[in-house]
Amino acid sequence: MSAIAKPVERLIEAFSRLPGVGPKTASRFTFFLLRGSDNLSVELAEALQQLHTDVVTCQQCYNIADESPCAICGDSLRDATTICVVEEPLDVVALERTHAYHGLYHVLHGAISPADNIFPDDLRIRELVRRLEAAPVEELILATNPNLEGEATAAYIQRQLAGKKVRVTRLARGLPVGGDLEYADALTLSRALAERQTA
Amino acid sequence: MSAIAKPVERLIEAFSRLPGVGPKTASRFTFFLLRGSDNLSVELAEALQQLHTDVVTCQQCYNIADESPCAICGDSLRDATTICVVEEPLDVVALERTHAYHGLYHVLHGAISPADNIFPDDLRIRELVRRLEAAPVEELILATNPNLEGEATAAYIQRQLAGKKVRVTRLARGLPVGGDLEYADALTLSRALAERQTA
Repeated sequence: MSAIAKPVERLIEAFSRLPGVGPKTASRFTFFLLRGSDNLSVELAEALQQLHTDVVTCQQCYNIADESPCAICGDSLRDATTICVVEEPLDVVALERTHAYHGLYHVLHGAISPADNIFPDDLRIRELVRRLEAAPVEELILATNPNLEGEATAAYIQRQLAGKKVRVTRLARGLPVGGDLEYADALTLSRALAERQTA
Repeated sequence: MSAIAKPVERLIEAFSRLPGVGPKTASRFTFFLLRGSDNLSVELAEALQQLHTDVVTCQQCYNIADESPCAICGDSLRDATTICVVEEPLDVVALERTHAYHGLYHVLHGAISPADNIFPDDLRIRELVRRLEAAPVEELILATNPNLEGEATAAYIQRQLAGKKVRVTRLARGLPVGGDLEYADALTLSRALAERQTA
């Protein structure tokens, strides 16, 4: 006999399969929803059900979208000669928030990481090469994460494009704006030094 | 134009209404579910929908349960002369895990906290008093949380029962088992000293 109702137990179990959520946090979510007089649990349930049915992958940039081609790929005002390569859909959101980029995207859906069993063929790299062959692209910005896997992925893509007539760039590495020099790690600081600009 | 699909945005918004979940964590949950080939999002959606339909409040102890009376109240092997008063259903789970308690429970669903606009009438205190009048109870264990609100609630209940022939007890306060004396706060340590026991 359990002290906890089966539907409650079931929801706690499901919540605790989310990343970073242990049984304690899962219980907190569940009892919060139980206590709530508002319809958050219904809203959550509906949003979850819509997630896999109403969402598609854009067949050009592989971003998660309402339709394919997505709103960005289908926007004739955007610069189709520049493609920014990112690891995840969330990276597109981050870049769009800057309002500083007006080209298109290509979402790899991960980074090369042999330790996690993720190899080039698991990512949308082949699709990227094909895309560059199909349409004239002037600049390819490799905006993978500035970590081991991201760097390896960028290097791999660069090798695949050897001999192709496209300018390949990377995001600048340096001190974060609003950051504090004394807290910067040695690697970031040395990159900031090496890539210093005339003021 | 948003860079993010509407169903994705909707789920992020819903997740971020959970306690302790900000937009970043909500995004992480959502994209984890999007990436997942397994049916976690469907499982979550179903568990959420069941939560409010398949769960009842036991009309004796006010615990969340599959049926009323709940499995604990309906268990004739349990000691009906002892009632343990707790704030939340999760406290019942914690106490059941000890396998050291064989009486019944009474769930208040909160603690008195004027700052949060929670007054005695918002809790199941009246129901507790009525329950004590209806059936012979020998011991009432006030197992509210050892904090300001819990202490206030316990004190309030004790006043309501003045003159009633029931033994009212509280859980022992002292050093946590496995804890470290040097890390104990002064209040806990002074309670542990005051309530010291012959070895």
